Amino acid sequence: MDFSSKLLGQAVAEMSQLPGIGKRTALRLVLHLLKQPESQTVQLSGALTNLRTQIKLCENCHNISDTRICDICANPNRLKEIVCVVEDIRDVMAIENTGQYRGLYHVLGGKISPMDGIGPSQLTIKSLIDKVKLGEVEEIIFALSSTLEGDTTNFYIFKQLEGAAIKTSTIARGISVGDELEFADEVTLGRSITNRVPFESSLKN
Amino acid sequence: MDFSSKLLGQAVAEMSQLPGIGKRTALRLVLHLLKQPESQTVQLSGALTNLRTQIKLCENCHNISDTRICDICANPNRLKEIVCVVEDIRDVMAIENTGQYRGLYHVLGGKISPMDGIGPSQLTIKSLIDKVKLGEVEEIIFALSSTLEGDTTNFYIFKQLEGAAIKTSTIARGISVGDELEFADEVTLGRSITNRVPFESSLKN
Repeated sequence: MDFSSKLLGQAVAEMSQLPGIGKRTALRLVLHLLKQPESQTVQLSGALTNLRTQIKLCENCHNISDTRICDICANPNRLKEIVCVVEDIRDVMAIENTGQYRGLYHVLGGKISPMDGIGPSQLTIKSLIDKVKLGEVEEIIFALSSTLEGDTTNFYIFKQLEGAAIKTSTIARGISVGDELEFADEVTLGRSITNRVPFESSLKN
Repeated sequence: MDFSSKLLGQAVAEMSQLPGIGKRTALRLVLHLLKQPESQTVQLSGALTNLRTQIKLCENCHNISDTRICDICANPNRLKEIVCVVEDIRDVMAIENTGQYRGLYHVLGGKISPMDGIGPSQLTIKSLIDKVKLGEVEEIIFALSSTLEGDTTNFYIFKQLEGAAIKTSTIARGISVGDELEFADEVTLGRSITNRVPFESSLKN
């Protein structure tokens, strides 16, 4: 695209570096900002810069946090001996929204993926192992998505933990609540039959 | 969504004010920026703020420009007596990309749309009429999209120009080059038959 304005061209070029935003969409977004009051652009720019420069990672669980220790780790009512291993803050938010989990988290920051050049050392796995070695943890719940990379990461951590006297578990896979059996894929349906639970426990929720 | 971080919450809230970007997409974009080098966020914020605070509208054609008079209006090789009326800079870019137009533009900044509360006074129609009254213009080409609002705006300007000794034209509507006739809508096909052109002139391009 040929822009008559350098300022416009630069803004579109920067905007279109965001994932899933092409040149056309970027132009649409930038032209939208031009039509809005100047304060909106200033606030957007300010919020992004503040976030990028001031945000911290919680020293305990590596979740995104405004403070040195995040709210969840700092909460005395959470069970410190249960740690749920997740990929990033979106998974933390998803689990928090259920209101069913009272333990802490450990945010890996990604999954082992040789294709993308991500090895164990780029993730926070070592810090998790150290935490276990200190004897603070009783149970680790693996809650990574069940892809090749997720399973590899789970298995890598599981191997590293061999010999440690802790329980490991993984979140249950099965048919979604409200889903029709006939449309479920075989792997999921197979797992949900193998890992069936006593009927009484399904009455609790 | 409940964010553990205020900084993150603010960035997502500002980002999700952009059209077509919901909370989830905003979160994805913001988390992407967090994974990238700080310079990318700083450059994005800077480009947006610079654009919003420094951009000008060309005093002649009202197109977005870095300078008082835009490059197209300042170009001595353009035909100043032909003016193409368009909605915004995207239309200017589209027509410029064809390389077929040597005249100037007049950017309205929108279309008359009572539903959206946009009347003639919010557009640059008066400035166009003034230009015509000064006798600088010989032909006006209407190139607004052929929607209800576009047709209304064309007709409003046309009425305002009554009595002025100028030619008015509208861009040709017809079947797109390369399209199959059988899939064309009736209105377009009808117009393209009514406004058929001599065969020889179709050989030029």
